[in-house]
Formats: sequence, structure tokens, C-alpha cells
Amino acid sequence: MSVSAGAGPVHLVRRNPPRVAPELAARFAPYGTATIHEAQGRRGCLASHMRPAWPRGRATGSAVTVSLPPADNWMIHVAVEVCRPGDILVVAPTSPSDAGYFGELLACSLQARGVVGLVIEAGCRDLAALEAMGFPVWSRAVSPQGTVKETLGSVNMPLVIAGQLVNPGDLVAADDDGVVVVRREEAEAVLAASGARERKEEATRTRLKAGELGLDIYGMREALAKKGLQYEDG
Amino acid sequence: MSVSAGAGPVHLVRRNPPRVAPELAARFAPYGTATIHEAQGRRGCLASHMRPAWPRGRATGSAVTVSLPPADNWMIHVAVEVCRPGDILVVAPTSPSDAGYFGELLACSLQARGVVGLVIEAGCRDLAALEAMGFPVWSRAVSPQGTVKETLGSVNMPLVIAGQLVNPGDLVAADDDGVVVVRREEAEAVLAASGARERKEEATRTRLKAGELGLDIYGMREALAKKGLQYEDG
Amino acid sequence: MSVSAGAGPVHLVRRNPPRVAPELAARFAPYGTATIHEAQGRRGCLASHMRPAWPRGRATGSAVTVSLPPADNWMIHVAVEVCRPGDILVVAPTSPSDAGYFGELLACSLQARGVVGLVIEAGCRDLAALEAMGFPVWSRAVSPQGTVKETLGSVNMPLVIAGQLVNPGDLVAADDDGVVVVRREEAEAVLAASGARERKEEATRTRLKAGELGLDIYGMREALAKKGLQYEDG
Amino acid sequence: MSVSAGAGPVHLVRRNPPRVAPELAARFAPYGTATIHEAQGRRGCLASHMRPAWPRGRATGSAVTVSLPPADNWMIHVAVEVCRPGDILVVAPTSPSDAGYFGELLACSLQARGVVGLVIEAGCRDLAALEAMGFPVWSRAVSPQGTVKETLGSVNMPLVIAGQLVNPGDLVAADDDGVVVVRREEAEAVLAASGARERKEEATRTRLKAGELGLDIYGMREALAKKGLQYEDG
Amino acid sequence: MSVSAGAGPVHLVRRNPPRVAPELAARFAPYGTATIHEAQGRRGCLASHMRPAWPRGRATGSAVTVSLPPADNWMIHVAVEVCRPGDILVVAPTSPSDAGYFGELLACSLQARGVVGLVIEAGCRDLAALEAMGFPVWSRAVSPQGTVKETLGSVNMPLVIAGQLVNPGDLVAADDDGVVVVRREEAEAVLAASGARERKEEATRTRLKAGELGLDIYGMREALAKKGLQYEDG
Amino acid sequence: MSVSAGAGPVHLVRRNPPRVAPELAARFAPYGTATIHEAQGRRGCLASHMRPAWPRGRATGSAVTVSLPPADNWMIHVAVEVCRPGDILVVAPTSPSDAGYFGELLACSLQARGVVGLVIEAGCRDLAALEAMGFPVWSRAVSPQGTVKETLGSVNMPLVIAGQLVNPGDLVAADDDGVVVVRREEAEAVLAASGARERKEEATRTRLKAGELGLDIYGMREALAKKGLQYEDG
Repeated sequence: MSVSAGAGPVHLVRRNPPRVAPELAARFAPYGTATIHEAQGRRGCLASHMRPAWPRGRATGSAVTVSLPPADNWMIHVAVEVCRPGDILVVAPTSPSDAGYFGELLACSLQARGVVGLVIEAGCRDLAALEAMGFPVWSRAVSPQGTVKETLGSVNMPLVIAGQLVNPGDLVAADDDGVVVVRREEAEAVLAASGARERKEEATRTRLKAGELGLDIYGMREALAKKGLQYEDG
Repeated sequence: MSVSAGAGPVHLVRRNPPRVAPELAARFAPYGTATIHEAQGRRGCLASHMRPAWPRGRATGSAVTVSLPPADNWMIHVAVEVCRPGDILVVAPTSPSDAGYFGELLACSLQARGVVGLVIEAGCRDLAALEAMGFPVWSRAVSPQGTVKETLGSVNMPLVIAGQLVNPGDLVAADDDGVVVVRREEAEAVLAASGARERKEEATRTRLKAGELGLDIYGMREALAKKGLQYEDG
Repeated sequence: MSVSAGAGPVHLVRRNPPRVAPELAARFAPYGTATIHEAQGRRGCLASHMRPAWPRGRATGSAVTVSLPPADNWMIHVAVEVCRPGDILVVAPTSPSDAGYFGELLACSLQARGVVGLVIEAGCRDLAALEAMGFPVWSRAVSPQGTVKETLGSVNMPLVIAGQLVNPGDLVAADDDGVVVVRREEAEAVLAASGARERKEEATRTRLKAGELGLDIYGMREALAKKGLQYEDG
Repeated sequence: MSVSAGAGPVHLVRRNPPRVAPELAARFAPYGTATIHEAQGRRGCLASHMRPAWPRGRATGSAVTVSLPPADNWMIHVAVEVCRPGDILVVAPTSPSDAGYFGELLACSLQARGVVGLVIEAGCRDLAALEAMGFPVWSRAVSPQGTVKETLGSVNMPLVIAGQLVNPGDLVAADDDGVVVVRREEAEAVLAASGARERKEEATRTRLKAGELGLDIYGMREALAKKGLQYEDG
Repeated sequence: MSVSAGAGPVHLVRRNPPRVAPELAARFAPYGTATIHEAQGRRGCLASHMRPAWPRGRATGSAVTVSLPPADNWMIHVAVEVCRPGDILVVAPTSPSDAGYFGELLACSLQARGVVGLVIEAGCRDLAALEAMGFPVWSRAVSPQGTVKETLGSVNMPLVIAGQLVNPGDLVAADDDGVVVVRREEAEAVLAASGARERKEEATRTRLKAGELGLDIYGMREALAKKGLQYEDG
Repeated sequence: MSVSAGAGPVHLVRRNPPRVAPELAARFAPYGTATIHEAQGRRGCLASHMRPAWPRGRATGSAVTVSLPPADNWMIHVAVEVCRPGDILVVAPTSPSDAGYFGELLACSLQARGVVGLVIEAGCRDLAALEAMGFPVWSRAVSPQGTVKETLGSVNMPLVIAGQLVNPGDLVAADDDGVVVVRREEAEAVLAASGARERKEEATRTRLKAGELGLDIYGMREALAKKGLQYEDG
């Protein structure tokens, strides 16, 4: 939320913060969230209650962040205007809510502007329509429960969502496993690290499928023995 | 639950309470739960923990309500007898339970009597069979855990389920988004309002897909400015 | 919430619905919620997430019901005006919220009008002050998180809260164990039944303290054997 | 977990405990978890938060149990080595965790050894890959969040998971409904009972589909009347 | 739970299983649950949702285990008869329940027989009375919601409760922090280890109070450096 | 958590980040968390699952932040060394955990260094001792479950905890209602605003106690009427 010490909150919309280039964001598409998360030093996972609204959707984009009140989706309408192609909308209420802030109409509006997906720590609705139009959503709930348009929030301010800080313009990737955030300044490096990890895993995968053991591939036996692991036959 | 002050509970089955006509219930089929909920003044949504047992099932019917004890499904067997074509069974335990009260056999029985679905604030089981036979269920849990047949409850008494009051004979609609209840006396009016809302949304959808903003379509800019929303470039 | 099919919700305040007389409500004071709940046929308990804000508070009063939006406490201010001595305020949001709707100032206002307590399916705050002034609160959460005053709700309409229907003017009793509602029309009968139950339990208590077994006092042995209970020495 | 009173925990891997024969485990394949659970006297269901990672997966196998620390999957690598064809891996952390302990690489390794599935009271990841390779997983969460390899646990010791005790070598069956455990010593008898139950249900199914009532098939009317169930027309 | 493969469950009461001697159980009284848990190799803690019904209660006793159905407390009455002085009652339902199975009357009965406390993975009630009579209870919920007496369970069979296996006759200790179980056969050894740990902690406590650092007392600096911990001034 | 794109995580301890002066932190003592939260524009509340370990504890201090693995408290020992008088320790695991990371010994150590309290999004233990020594703790759980010392984390890096970002050196205040964070740079202004709010509330309190209505004191009647609130007698 925006800030003004000693007064009511200032409600601010930043129109054009620096963002990850759409081309860079698109280059994350081949990598799963688990790979990206590991590649950046096991950081950036949103909490596991953030689940896809329909299976096999994927999105990687530059975050437009929205802070808004419980059960009030007015600021999503405000945010649409500042979205650009390649963006992903990232929304969190100021206190917990599972109302259905987002459905088919807003998805049409975002898709028309080239937005690649939505991550919301609240509820969404119109699941069947969202899947039919191919607009992926990650949320903590699904609910027909509607919202009002009465109270302001902010757009493109740093946002805490599902246990992570997301800055406007950060790279956000999401798939069946969940959602991960990558700092804008680190996106190039994490992309490279993701590719390196993927290549390394490919080699490991081949060996494991052939029946080799991780214990041997990763050379774990000595460390296990040193820690005191004991074996017993039978 | 049935009532008898100063004594044990009276366990009552109402055989034939007034109900929404099957034809009227069927006319709700084109409308999603979100639309119906909005059309009646944003009322009637069951809590978001009520989820479909399989995707894309839909049902609209006249509620047969069942109050029963935790982990005891005897009263569902009792309720089957009073169900009629076009009914939807609505079941809640008297204290929280996630046991599997309902599976394939009861679904066969209900389907044979023309019942269109089940809403239960507890667990169900036999998911694969339920989907295969096209019998839709909304529940708070899925579990193989069985139930007993020892303790009475009531059928067709007013029931609180998942945060809503459902009277026997009320219209209940359910889809991928969740479950909504409409009072029997208001069903005709809510049906008309749902249609009107749908037509209005169709027009809005076209404009949003063409890239118009909700801010302009809904004329929100003045109200936002009045509330003090500020913009910043960059 | 109030209702108007096919339009926005009507927001209504009923100033003076029939209510349980303060004298009658006060006569419930000697009885715990468990006793009252049993005495009326094991009905009327609110869900167990409703906990007292401080230990050993008790209240019995006539319900003034409030339906309001998530994180918006405007309607509590509206409700204060229609409260009378001996009332208890019963508040639920239209979708889940744990914000701190209620604190010391509102408690001062209610206490000044003779209101005996608050039951809210959301958050409260100022715990230390509430205890110091002896104003008891039952809530699902405690949180400093503030609320806005933007959106209407309704006062003294039937309300579903924590799994129970509470009508305005119903008797609500609350203590360390939780909260129970008694229909206004049944209050006299349930009061009598509570007294009868209390007297009966007093006799049982004496026998149990003397070492007699419930198995014998309640004569359970035959029923247990019939059900097939088996014993094994060792 | 392994045990050594008065000292740190002993971390033990049992290489070869007695197990249900793969052929016997395979013969459970036709029966759903609900049937097996009922057939053994309504016992053995894991808690309903254990959900399949993808729909319609099924597995029946001999349990290899793993106790490990929160967010540390080292012991899964250790367990792979002692797995045999027809085994199912059963994993629980020593205190609650939803991290993603298990993904595509470990699934490749297990599949290469003939392991038929995984049951883990924590998180898994790489959902799309798991479904593509047909390796079924039941878990309490899905998350990209990675784990470390720092702290020992134990393999093939009795394990409490999701409310049930699973011994190494017990039969574990899992499907869309959930997970059930059958004691190794009882597996033959439970298999027979499952078949008997299935045959009996087949007959009942036919009668129910033909419109007969459970009330009549099961002969419940007398017992209901004796308990005091009342009917009311209208 | 009792067991009979291929049939309905057998409901069995073991009258007199081996148990930890009351004198031995009493000697655990000086030690907190955290100490006992650590002393036996960091094992045996029940899940953290098991909370005391009132502050500062403590109990150590020999477990009498009860498995019973959701919202049915009949088997507690059965269990009272087989309790002896120094026992602690340990109760879990066969599927989740938060009903109020236990209150003042049963506490009177248990106290009259010398039972030292109750651990129940469900709800209790009559909190004020329980505290007044000094009977300590650990539960997952508090609720006035009553239970029935219709369905059998078992007494003194191995029981899974809150993530732990408790055998009849095991030592169970409980305090403000929670509940821990110690195998009967290990009780003497764990008691000795608890004393040793306590004495060692006493020495550490004195040094820490004097301002020494755990880093130095436990000699952690080298291990931290080896793992790669880095420091930065400012 | 510390960061190093494309590699394993860097584990960093900042010894001496800028912090709120102890004198300034102490001046927040008269104000409750609700007041501070409101005074800074309704920002900064940690989630409501953060509860005090014992009643009526209070603390205001400069945050020393700790990120650490689930069920591993090694980094708390590391953090003690960089704590100074007037600090408050703020700890969050990298994925959810309810283990008992913190008890009497660490409290002795922190108290010896002048630390005023602990806020931890996990479990604590030794409740009775913590209260006896007057060391206040806010946590999401209480559990005897112990932790290991195997894996590194970071100290004095920005930390997301319970839905809020806490920077090292920020002002953290906690009381019975919960926990609130104030940016270091805004602490003076928020302190002044808290005082102003307190004085204003004092005046309002007096008027409310005298029976004046909030509706009149805050001048709400016109706005309510404009929104469409309707009244009905009876």
C-alpha cells in the first residue's frame, strides 16, 4: 500500500516503472518455476496456497502490482490502463479475502492489452471461461462472491504477496507448480542459470532413467556415513 | 435441525415442501453462479471451500435439505425417497466432518430418481465413478473414509450450509466457480435479472475485447479522482 | 444482507424488531452455553472458531444483528443507535475477514447504551482495554488491522454467523466455551429446560464424585453389549 | 523416526523388511480405496488433505517408509536404493512442511526401479512432468520450493503419516479418493473381502439404478421408526 | 482402532494392559515436555494444534487410549471404568471432529478415579469448571457442541493421535507447551536423560545469563565458517 | 534471504545496519499496535496468526531480522551476537514451520543483551518460563518440537514475515493485539501521529462514554443517507 506517515494512506498509481523487457520475460517460458527458483539460489517462491485456476497454464511476464482492499476490485480496473504487452498482473488485498475479484470481463480487458496472466492472493471466478480463452490465473481461492468498487489502493508499488516481496517490473513466472518472482536486475543472470541448470538436469535425468542412483551421481555416500547413517539388513 | 425445546431433538422428514418448479430451475442453466449471485444483489454464495468433485459439472435444481450427524449418512438414504426429478440434494453435518458420506451407489440411486446433483459440506468419494456417470457433486473434501448409519437428523428443514441459509425448495445453482442459493419466491425475478445482466455483460465484453477500458465504459475516472487517487509518471 | 432481486442490494436498518426481554435474557446468566445447547435439543452452537477475547467473560442478551462488508465497520456505528440495554451485538461480514472491526471506542459506546457484549465472525482489537472495562467479545481473530467506512450493510435482518442462523431478537449466550443462539419464541422453554438439566446434572455430579460410574448411572451396559462391545483382560 | 532414548536419534535404514508380495499388491488394483477401507472394517484411511497430484492416477504397492526433516529430502535419495519393483514410497516429515521435496528427477529414478508411486505428507513439484511420465503422487501440497540435503532421518521404520500408522511392507493403495493402508498380515484377507464387497455392491447398484430405494434394499425402515423418525406431508 | 479384516470392526476394551507405574510417571513431573522430547532424541511430540484448556496445567501419566467416532463420546464412559490412579486419558476420533466430547461431569468421574488429565484430538467444554477443579485438558478445540452415545470404538488399543502413535501404558506428559509421548519400555531411560539434560541446561543458563554467547558455549563458529557464513560490517 | 543469482544462496550476516535509536523505540511504548497502525495510514500489521505467548506482554524495539530454514534455529544463535540493547528479534523460516525454535535458554541469552522481545513466524516453547522471566514472544504456534543446527540463513537482510516486509532497523511494536512494523525513516513522524491520534481518541472516548453516538460525533448521517441506507420502524 502507498504511504504517508501521520495521515491517511496516499493512493498512488505509478504509470511506468522500469520493467523487465517482454522479450526477456518470454525467454523464461521454457523453464519451470522449480527450475527458476533453484537457479536463483532457492529464493522467490510464493506460498503453496497459490494454485492455478486451470491446469497446464503458464505465464512469464513483468509484474504490475496492485494493492487493494478486501472484497473491492476497483484498483484492478485502474491497473488495466497502465498494463502493457508482456505484463502479468500481481494483486494482493490489504487483509485476507477470498472473494471473486476477477473473472471473464477483466480477463478480456487484460488480454486485449497483451497481459499474459494474473496472480492474485484472493479469489477469482468464471473458471470455465478463463480456460476457454486461455487466460491463466493463479489464486488462493475460487468463488462467485462479487466485490465492490468503493475504496482506493495503489498500483505499481512494492507488494508483499503470499510470503514474497514483488516489485513492479520484477519477472514473475507461474505454472502448475506455483509462482516465483525474480528481481528485475537479476533476470538476465537467473535466465542463464536456469538454462545451465536445465542442461545439467537433462544429463542427470538420463543417468537416473538408466537406473543409476542419486547416491552415486551426487556422491552422497561419504557425507551420509559421516553424519552417522546406519544400515540394517532385514 | 429439527427442534423441540426442553427435550431431545425432534427428527422430522418433510415429504413435500413447496419447491421451485423443475422447468424454472432448468431455465437457470445458461447462467453461471457468478451471474446469478450478482443478479440478486450480490447474495447467496456458499463459502469458497465448496468445490466441485470433477471439472465442468453444472447443476440447477430445487433444494432437498438434509441435516445429519458427523460421519453418519443414514439421513441421505432417507432423503432419497422424498426427492423428485429436478431436485438437488443439499447436505450439512451438525458439526464439522470430512468423512466420505456419498459415493457411486447413492449417486446411482439419486440419478435414477432424476436428482441433478449434490452439495455437501463434508466429504464425498468415488470421484472417478461420479464423473463417469455425469453426476456432479460439490463438497468441502474428498475422502474414502466411510460413515455409519446410527443417528437421526432431519430432511427438508431450513439448513445453514457453508455460510448460507438454504430452505427446502430454494433454487440452488452450482458450477466450477461454486454454489449459490436463490430463494424460491425470488427465483423468477432473479432469472430475469440474470438474463438482463448477461445481455449487458455481452455488450461490455465486446467493447473490452476491442481495447476500451473499464475506466471509460463504467465512467470511473471522476469518482477515483474525487477519492484522491494520484498518478505518477515513471 | 438485505435483498432486492434484480437490483443492487437494499440496505436496511430495522429499528425495533421484537426482542427477548432483558429480564428474560438475564435469567440465562447462571447457565453455561453447553447446558443451554443441550437443553434445547443439542442445537444452536456457533462454530468453535468463535473464541472469547479474554477469559471468563460471560454475556446473555437479545441479538442485534449486523451484516457488513469485509474490513468495513461502518454498520457497527449505525447499529449502536438501535441498541438497547440488555442487547448483544452479533456481527458477520459478507465474505471472510479477520480485520480488527471493533475496539475500545466502540466498546465504550456500546457499554454506555447498556449492551452486554459483542459476537463477531471477524477480528477485534484493544484486548487489554476490553478486559479492563469488562466488555466481553467473542471473535474469530484478534488483529490491530483497521477497517474503512465506505460500504453499507444491514442491521436487524436474519444473519448467518459461524454456521448458525441468528434472527434479531433471538437470545444469544456466550461464555468460555463459545456461543449459542436460542430462538426468541423458545427462550422461556429453553430457560426452564436449562434449569431442569442443571438440577439433574447436580445430582449426577455428586454420584460421579463419589466414584460411581456413568456406565451404571446411565445404565449403558446392556446397550453396549448389544452393539457387540467386547472386553479382554490384560 | 529411529530411536535411542537418552541420546540423539539413531538414523537407521532397514534394507529389506518383510513386504507384501508385488503380485499380491497388484491384485488390489481393481479395487478403489473406499472399497478397501470398508472391506477391512472401515480402517486405514489417510487424512483427506492427501490429494493426487494429477487426476486418475492409481497405485497399489508395498510401503517403503521414510521419516525425514522439514524441507530436507536427503533421505528420499537414500530410500531409492532399497526400493524394489512393486514398492510405493511413503514419506512424512518430522514436523509439518509444504516444501517441494519431490519432482521429475526423483520420479525418473523411482520409475527406473519399478516403484509404482509416492505418498508424501508434504509438497511435490513438476506436476506436468509427473503426469506425462505416468508417475502418480499423493501429497498435501504442490510447491516449487526446494529442499536441502543436510539432516538424516530413517527408512523402513514404522511411520505415522496423515493420521495413520504405516509399517514398512504394509500394502498402500491410492486413487482419486485418497490413500488407504492395509497391514501386511491382513492383505490376503482384505483382498478377499474387497472382492466380496465389490460383488455385493454390483448387485445393489443394479437395483438402485432400477429405482429401488436403499431404505428397502437395506431394510432400514424399522430401525428409523424405532429411533423416532417422524414424517410430515407438505 | 480395533480390527477384523474382511468384516465390520471389532470393538474391544482391554481392561488391563501393562502400564508405566504411577510412581515412575510422577517422577517426570519436574520436566517440561520440551526437555523430555529432546531427551529421547527429539521424538514423540504431538502436533501443535493440541493446546491446554487452561494455563499452567501439567500432567504426567500412563496412557489409557480411546478410539471413538466423530461427535460420539460413548467410549469415554466405557474407558472410565478401566482407568486407575495415575492414568491419563488419550482420545482420538476416527475422523476429524471438534465437538465438545468432554466436560465437567466426566472430569469429576475421572478425578474420582485418580486420573491426572485428558488429551483429546477434538473439542472439550466447561473450561471454567475444569480449571476450578484443577483437571487439566489438552484439546484441538473448545466447543459447547454436544455428542451422542450411539457407536462403539475401542479402549486400550494402539492409537494415532495428532501425528503420534500412543500405545496403552505409554508415558504421556503435557504442559503449556504441548504433549509428548514416551514408550513405556523407554520411560526409565528417558527419565534419566531428562534429568541429565536439565542439569546441563542449568549450567548453560547461568553462562547465557552472564552474557556468554551460545556461539562460544556450543563452539559453533568453525562449523558456521565452514558452511560459508559471511559477515559484513554495517 | 540472501541472494546470489545463478549460484547457491549467499548467507550473510550484517553486523550493524542503521537502526531506530533505542530511545526513540522506547517512546512508542505508550501506544498500542492498533494506534500505531492507524497513525501511519493503516499500514504495517503482521497477519493475525501472530499471537502473544503470554498475555499482556508488550515490546517496542529495532528489528534484527533472521531468515532461516524450517525446523533449524542455528541462525538465531548467530543473530544473538549482533543484537544490542533495545533490539527486537524478528524471525521467519523460508517455508512454513511450526517447530519450537525458541525457548528459555535463548530468551536468557537475548535478555542478557538487552533484547526486548521476539517475533517469530513459527513455534516457540517454554511458555511458563518465558512469562516468569518477562520475555515477550509473538509466534504462530507453540510446540515442544525441537530444531536442528545444520543449515545457514541470513541476519539483518530485508525479511517478509506474516505478510509484511521488515527491514533491519525498522521499528517493531507488539502487544496483545498483534504486531506492527514502522519504517525506520518514518518512526519519528509515526510517533508524533500516534500521540496525536491518542489525544483525539481520548476526547472521543469521553463523549462516547457519555452516550453520544459515533454517527453524530463523526458526522456520518448524511453520507449514509446518500449511499441509500434505509430505516424501518419495527
